[in-house]
Amino acid sequence: MLNSFILTLNAGSSSLKTAFYDTATGGASLMTGQVDRIGSAPHLKATWADGTRVERDLDNPQAGHAGAMKAVLRLVEEGAPEARIEAVCHRIVHGGPDRTDSVVLTEAIIKELSALAPYAPLHQPHNLSGVRGAMEAFPDALQVACFDTAFHRGHPWVNDTFALPREYYDKGVRRYGFHGLSYDYIASRLAADYPTLYAGRVVVAHLGNGASMCGLHGGRSIASTMGFSAVDGLPMGTRTGQLDPGVLLYLMTEEGMDAAAITDLIYRRSGLLGLSGLSNDMRTLEASDDPAARQAIEYFTFRIRRELGGLAAALGGIDGLVFTGGIGEHSAHVRAAVCEGMGWIGIDLDRQANRTHGPDLTAPGGRVKVLTLATDEEGVLAREGRRHLAA
Amino acid sequence: MLNSFILTLNAGSSSLKTAFYDTATGGASLMTGQVDRIGSAPHLKATWADGTRVERDLDNPQAGHAGAMKAVLRLVEEGAPEARIEAVCHRIVHGGPDRTDSVVLTEAIIKELSALAPYAPLHQPHNLSGVRGAMEAFPDALQVACFDTAFHRGHPWVNDTFALPREYYDKGVRRYGFHGLSYDYIASRLAADYPTLYAGRVVVAHLGNGASMCGLHGGRSIASTMGFSAVDGLPMGTRTGQLDPGVLLYLMTEEGMDAAAITDLIYRRSGLLGLSGLSNDMRTLEASDDPAARQAIEYFTFRIRRELGGLAAALGGIDGLVFTGGIGEHSAHVRAAVCEGMGWIGIDLDRQANRTHGPDLTAPGGRVKVLTLATDEEGVLAREGRRHLAA
Repeated sequence: MLNSFILTLNAGSSSLKTAFYDTATGGASLMTGQVDRIGSAPHLKATWADGTRVERDLDNPQAGHAGAMKAVLRLVEEGAPEARIEAVCHRIVHGGPDRTDSVVLTEAIIKELSALAPYAPLHQPHNLSGVRGAMEAFPDALQVACFDTAFHRGHPWVNDTFALPREYYDKGVRRYGFHGLSYDYIASRLAADYPTLYAGRVVVAHLGNGASMCGLHGGRSIASTMGFSAVDGLPMGTRTGQLDPGVLLYLMTEEGMDAAAITDLIYRRSGLLGLSGLSNDMRTLEASDDPAARQAIEYFTFRIRRELGGLAAALGGIDGLVFTGGIGEHSAHVRAAVCEGMGWIGIDLDRQANRTHGPDLTAPGGRVKVLTLATDEEGVLAREGRRHLAA
Repeated sequence: MLNSFILTLNAGSSSLKTAFYDTATGGASLMTGQVDRIGSAPHLKATWADGTRVERDLDNPQAGHAGAMKAVLRLVEEGAPEARIEAVCHRIVHGGPDRTDSVVLTEAIIKELSALAPYAPLHQPHNLSGVRGAMEAFPDALQVACFDTAFHRGHPWVNDTFALPREYYDKGVRRYGFHGLSYDYIASRLAADYPTLYAGRVVVAHLGNGASMCGLHGGRSIASTMGFSAVDGLPMGTRTGQLDPGVLLYLMTEEGMDAAAITDLIYRRSGLLGLSGLSNDMRTLEASDDPAARQAIEYFTFRIRRELGGLAAALGGIDGLVFTGGIGEHSAHVRAAVCEGMGWIGIDLDRQANRTHGPDLTAPGGRVKVLTLATDEEGVLAREGRRHLAA
């Protein structure tokens, strides 16, 4: 096999997604795979383009992200034993205030990124341990870092700051926004398939176990619902989203909670899980008759509506609304609840098209185009790998 | 003097406002006064209806709110020596989750309200010490408590909860909303002077040194920008407003700040003061050539616009926007910046009417009525006093 390949790695707190691309072609991935339940019962699933499926529990449940990385390497060695991997492309949650683009990693840049760990303590260390593992396994490949923050770095100052004393902005306490690879991909889809909409003002709702919304104008991010950290904005599977800072002061003074206990509460025990008392999974909640499950969904969709109004104000009105992410792509109920009674902002949903997942959900005569588009963060990682290989 | 009178007391963290009303008439106050700079250099200013002005430094700068209360009592004794005070009406910041109305204070209720101090540690204790002082001075008067939270207690659940585990809602961690006396007054003005608008959907922006916004439908509060505490929502003179909870975790873990240090930062050193590095006073910022002052105003007006969009979503669109509070009533610049480019939501500002402070700022053909109305929290306190005296 003489062709060369790109491997993508996307490490979450308990998962590692991977994909495998031919460097020369701009097409779809040759393999996609995922290690889930890292830290408890790690399990690998992957599918090759020829239909071959691989599925196995990992040998050592204690091996964490390093073990997951080894499982991915074995998967590639088995499936494409003579493949020459020219670039490994990593999704890195945080690039800091100045990185507006992907970059080929050097020791100096890895050091710079390690120093950002306090900004994303639950994600950045896992991302960088993935980088270390890949450098050992593929010492001759380019290691490319793509940042979830980069796409948002052109925000106007009012969307980038909090009303803290100015020195906090200077030392990096800013509204970074995340899910940038997903928004980057959706923007590229709009440019290709909906060029008029791309030129206009679009709100993209990335709704998955993590969730945020982004206001785009001319394909560039103007504002995001996520702020300094990945807990702000919309409620998520287990995260609170927007929370009065006075609540944290109350938890500290009245309940004696420290930062670790509050982190556990607002990142891991809140959101859909906390409100429903049942599950962080939208499918489970939609299938449930429990009133608490219905209320959790109602809160989720209400906050999306409220942020939609806020982002419309940041953009000066909207021309389009795009749903993406697992919930955005698959939950007709959530999309319908978000769009209900939004005629004042120009949204009129075609209920039949919504039931069959569109992609165009706009009712005849609806002024705001409503779409559902599948996101592809791995595709953006591969695109950046090709770009750096060609440079 | 046979008439009977009502005294109102409105205690802030460093001020005590007072007014004096004839019980029998529904008219304007006979006296308004204010003690400022409590805790540093307390100073009393008051004006009687006959034009008599009183102004003096208080004797004992250390006497705090109790000293301010004594100064108010002396003011009343001097100006209306034979007045029979039938009711003293107190603005109380927090009434807890269940109080939807004002109430005549009993020992049991004072105890109940004291237990709410953890919900409003910077305000509730001062409010209740004012009650104690008034009970000593006027043992025969009704002591009436009017709550800043009461007006908002009918919020739909989605506007009342955070996405924390449900037990937090049950134990009172809710979106209370504040400035209820001001919104109550504005609603009553709309009912009297703009009945069609009153029946519709109106956002009221109460913009003073404290600032919040409220969405009204049919005169009832549907949503507020303030949440559990008085620090959430809009940026204020010295408060941050909306702040990613992840920033607090960062301050705790990376800067070693405890609850007292964070409280000082986000309540007293942030907002317009923190962003400008200059002043918490909008008049000072508007008069300044400093770019940081301009940026602070820009952030303030941007966040108002963003919350306006969010509240419009909560209401299903808007029919009116009312500016009130010191900044809302007097800053044509802030009003113009908020309304700029808001045609998408139906707002079209009459720039000439805005310069001369309206009250009607709607351009001909503007779909959303824009008004500036002077608020009167003391008038609501007196109204409630009359109601309880008549009951």
